[in-house]
Amino acid sequence: MPHIDLDENLPGIRALLAFSPETAKPLGELTELLLRSNEGLSPAEREMIATHVSYLNDCFYCHQSHGAIVSCYLNGDNETVNAVKRDYQAAPVSEKLKSLLTIAGKVQQSGKAVLAEDIEHAKEQGATDRDIHDTVLIAAAFCLFNRYVDGLATIAPEDLSTYPLRARQIVEKGYGNHIFLNPQPTK
Amino acid sequence: MPHIDLDENLPGIRALLAFSPETAKPLGELTELLLRSNEGLSPAEREMIATHVSYLNDCFYCHQSHGAIVSCYLNGDNETVNAVKRDYQAAPVSEKLKSLLTIAGKVQQSGKAVLAEDIEHAKEQGATDRDIHDTVLIAAAFCLFNRYVDGLATIAPEDLSTYPLRARQIVEKGYGNHIFLNPQPTK
Repeated sequence: MPHIDLDENLPGIRALLAFSPETAKPLGELTELLLRSNEGLSPAEREMIATHVSYLNDCFYCHQSHGAIVSCYLNGDNETVNAVKRDYQAAPVSEKLKSLLTIAGKVQQSGKAVLAEDIEHAKEQGATDRDIHDTVLIAAAFCLFNRYVDGLATIAPEDLSTYPLRARQIVEKGYGNHIFLNPQPTK
Repeated sequence: MPHIDLDENLPGIRALLAFSPETAKPLGELTELLLRSNEGLSPAEREMIATHVSYLNDCFYCHQSHGAIVSCYLNGDNETVNAVKRDYQAAPVSEKLKSLLTIAGKVQQSGKAVLAEDIEHAKEQGATDRDIHDTVLIAAAFCLFNRYVDGLATIAPEDLSTYPLRARQIVEKGYGNHIFLNPQPTK
């Protein structure tokens, strides 16, 4: 049961965005910029970083939601995101993305955990300053979102079939105001 | 030395906001809403929650910056914020704020660490759903900011006399575009 009085028809962060529409606006804009940009990293790579951090933070709603979005970008391939969750170093993704997932995993622990050698390794794999900046900010942002979602004990749908439907909406329309429409069932 | 190519004349998060002005905009709007609202919690209480979480995350730039802002709101009283950093349960702040600092400290660890009994205790001390929501979101937001600042190894001024000057600007003008003006010395 959520810790505060939320709309029971809205799952996860969507109930919080509806509770506090003022803060929902900049949070939505930040998410749109970080996860839908095509500058440097692709939207699929950005969503993979978000999924990885959410999985490390054990946030079921977020890692299911963003994992489903990765799969949608990869034309229904669920295996790649599952492989990253299991062991990203053994997953079928680029060495550059692996080096950025290492940085994201450090950020999940603490900003100070990121070492100069992690940055150097990512640059050797072709990462630019912009890629590194965006990786750190995506990872940091999901340390916010995961805590917001779980810190207020929002409801996560247990029926996994609801996540791909929602993912398709995000891929097609982005993180805009439509998040308040077409409620995803919470059960 | 910062991990990416940042303006050396700008300290802490300000160098990152200048590096990425697109994401700076929603981050600034979120900070303004969370830390300057007078609805329920006062700006001083909101800044105290931000300082507490930044101190727990060992983010020198953030806990010095926001601690100085608390002191500015309290007309130059540095002792209260230092007492909260040392042991908030023994500090001269309200029982309601103590109960919210407990929740913020749990969020700093993990969203899942917040228990129903923590929420119940805060409500007994007079906290509303809005107060609890804002506390969780401020704490979560500083888990973002602290990781952004330290994950990219930004420079924190060692001269503590620079922080109160900057704090006065924030208290008077808020978290707007002026953050790019009047650079605070980085050394």
